[in-house]
Amino acid sequence: MQSSDVLRDIVIGMSDGLTVPFALAAGLSGAVESSNIIIIAGIAEIAAGSIAMGLGGYLAGKTEQDHYNSELKREYEEVEKVPEREREEVRDFFEQIGLSKDLQVKATNEIAKDKIKWVDFMMKYELGLEKPDPKRAGKSALNIGLSYIVGGIIPLSPYFFVANSKDALKISIIATLVCLFVFGYFKSKVTGVTPVWGALRVTLIGAVAAAAAFSIALLF
Amino acid sequence: MQSSDVLRDIVIGMSDGLTVPFALAAGLSGAVESSNIIIIAGIAEIAAGSIAMGLGGYLAGKTEQDHYNSELKREYEEVEKVPEREREEVRDFFEQIGLSKDLQVKATNEIAKDKIKWVDFMMKYELGLEKPDPKRAGKSALNIGLSYIVGGIIPLSPYFFVANSKDALKISIIATLVCLFVFGYFKSKVTGVTPVWGALRVTLIGAVAAAAAFSIALLF
Repeated sequence: MQSSDVLRDIVIGMSDGLTVPFALAAGLSGAVESSNIIIIAGIAEIAAGSIAMGLGGYLAGKTEQDHYNSELKREYEEVEKVPEREREEVRDFFEQIGLSKDLQVKATNEIAKDKIKWVDFMMKYELGLEKPDPKRAGKSALNIGLSYIVGGIIPLSPYFFVANSKDALKISIIATLVCLFVFGYFKSKVTGVTPVWGALRVTLIGAVAAAAAFSIALLF
Repeated sequence: MQSSDVLRDIVIGMSDGLTVPFALAAGLSGAVESSNIIIIAGIAEIAAGSIAMGLGGYLAGKTEQDHYNSELKREYEEVEKVPEREREEVRDFFEQIGLSKDLQVKATNEIAKDKIKWVDFMMKYELGLEKPDPKRAGKSALNIGLSYIVGGIIPLSPYFFVANSKDALKISIIATLVCLFVFGYFKSKVTGVTPVWGALRVTLIGAVAAAAAFSIALLF
């Protein structure tokens, strides 16, 4: 699963990185002639976006872990201090999935025999919390942030070689839409969506965002 | 819960909208003197970002629903065609939470008596899927997209009134960091994180992203 997690991060970061810098560059091409300003704006956006995504993801992961640990501590205390209420919550779970009164009581007794098992059960099925992998948050954030940068460079690269922004835009559109389709395809495979529909969806979002940014910037 | 869902969308959209347009404007202020270009770039980014977030969220919600429905159909078919394998999966669940052999069998028999109950159980605990609310996806996307626009206007507004970009940046920094702190506070309350730590986190992400974008754009 390790390699598929990395693949997931790369694909998500890259397809997001393709969309917003692409739309920004397209929008600016509607308003300014020179590719230089678009390059600077694009690089600033890639820096901002990759940090917001990467650092944001890292800190969110850290917080998720703190949250898990504090809930875990609370559950251990509750099992100690108010065991009857906690037993009631286990019984509620078995009632809600549709077991008979008799089995609700028997199953609750078995779960509550072992405190570790009991707390594990409460964490997962009362609170819906899975134990987060401590190293995962940082790695994932780094992968997503770096992939955002790589993705963002694709729509921006034609502006490095073509001085007129509207000419650069044409190449950027073709390159980016092709990449969006390819990455949308892989993103969908990874996230369990029908690949072609997912690829079209990702491409459509990029195209609409770019068209809107272009039209709006043209008005100013 | 309806009003807290809306609040959640607004807070998430707005705190994201504050971060990236803020960092982009800060980055461009490091590279260009005129506020005009920053306004155009900022508006193009807000258009691009809000559409990517809003439309992206809407289509993701639609896909989630399709995915749920197709899995639901598959589970009904499997319960019909390979009931023994499906019973085994229910038994595996009860084994994994730690029930005795005897109760595993009894509980499985009770679940499998009623096909609707059985499939509901499989959807929730084998596949971990909750039934998505059909109207929620569209509304949520709209709320997040609109809040992104409102959030993005805050860091950008000083540039409308101050012609020199570096002077506008100073006002933008103060206004945005204050807003990031306030929205970080509410975001944390809504998402169940310690509010002050969450507020500092959101403010830090915005500040680091803006500082990095500024430094990088200065180099070009």
